[in-house]
Parts: sequence; C-alpha cells; structure tokens
Amino acid sequence: MSPLEILREFQDHEDLVVRLAKLEIDSTRLTEYESFLTEEIKEAVAKEPGVLTMYAVQDQTKPHHVTIMEIYANDSAYQAHLNTPHFLKYKNGTREMVNSLELIDLDPIVFGVRDN
Amino acid sequence: MSPLEILREFQDHEDLVVRLAKLEIDSTRLTEYESFLTEEIKEAVAKEPGVLTMYAVQDQTKPHHVTIMEIYANDSAYQAHLNTPHFLKYKNGTREMVNSLELIDLDPIVFGVRDN
Repeated sequence: MSPLEILREFQDHEDLVVRLAKLEIDSTRLTEYESFLTEEIKEAVAKEPGVLTMYAVQDQTKPHHVTIMEIYANDSAYQAHLNTPHFLKYKNGTREMVNSLELIDLDPIVFGVRDN
Repeated sequence: MSPLEILREFQDHEDLVVRLAKLEIDSTRLTEYESFLTEEIKEAVAKEPGVLTMYAVQDQTKPHHVTIMEIYANDSAYQAHLNTPHFLKYKNGTREMVNSLELIDLDPIVFGVRDN
C-alpha cells in the first residue's frame, strides 16, 4: 500500500503518528539550517519506509519560523527515525542554530492529496 | 506533471501557494465541523486540478484546535477555489462554528513524500 493510500485511508491505520514541529531558528544561520534540514528530509523519505511525509515550510513574514508536518507509519518507525545517521547528523549539526522547538502531537481529520 | 512531482520540484514552481490555516472550533460542534471540512477537502482535491494537497489535523490535547496545510498550484487556483460550490458550502455552513481563524502564508523549504 502506497503512502498516499495510507494517508487517504488513515481511519484504517490507527498507528499513524502525525506531528507538527515548530522551530525558531537563529536568523543569521537560516541558510545553513535549511541545508541540513533538506538533506535530512530527503534521506528520510528515500531510506525509511515508515517515514511517509515531511513537509517543511517557513513563514513568509518571519522566515526563521519553520514548521514541519511529519507523518510516520507508526511509533516504532518514529523511534527508529531518531536513531538514523541522517537524523543524528541533522540534530547534532543544527543544535546551535535552533532557538526553540515545540512538538505538537496531532490526529488526522482528513488528508486530501490530488492523484494527478 | 503529478502533484507529487510538483511538490518535490517546488523550486521550479514559483507560483505555488502554501498556507497554514489555524482554526479554533466551538468544541460543542466539532463533529459537525469535521464533517463539513472532510466533504469540502475531498471535493476540492477530486475536482480542482489546482488544489494539490489539504492536510487537516487537530491537536491531540486540544482537538478543537484545527490546522490545515493547503498547497495550491498558483494564486488563480486559490482564487478559483474560493468560488467553488463545495468551498462556499463549507464556509457558510461552518461560519457559526469557527471561533477564530488565522491564515499564515508560507514558503516551502522541502517537501518530502515517499514514493511507495
């Protein structure tokens, strides 16, 4: 079953872990932070079957306010993610750039994604 | 080009409109609100080529705090969306249930979505 099918039929996948990470980044190091984040997310969705989506965005008026919507297949996929080399590289590499981090656990209401 | 290809290659699609809608819903009418929202989102991604994704979620600890991440192909797709029958039905039908609404305009950093 593809990630998109899982998202659309989330009612049948009670184990999904959905989370919003809200970060405030040191503005003077934002470009550097974005480079770490981009590499980490690309590796995660390429290598980890349990990482379904990671949407990383920044406020237009406050670009150092970064939000990431993360969807994992289940909690063990999330726990495994925390121990991957790419996550640890990101976490350790950006530690000094992140001024604050808030994690919000979410439940899906509906995931709408176009087919084509 | 599929919506997922557009998301992955967002650098080539400068017109993308990405937005976070943060709503506080009257808790006593949350189920009713969710039903309007689900219908609206399913119709939008099914009928509007310019509506790429709409991820609607609620805080686990405060389920009446609803967040929707919306991605449109461009501003005219977004403007067209505002005049569709399904959006107007949602907007008019839920007016009394929405205590507050904040719209945050975003820029993508990276959209990670698994293929399979």
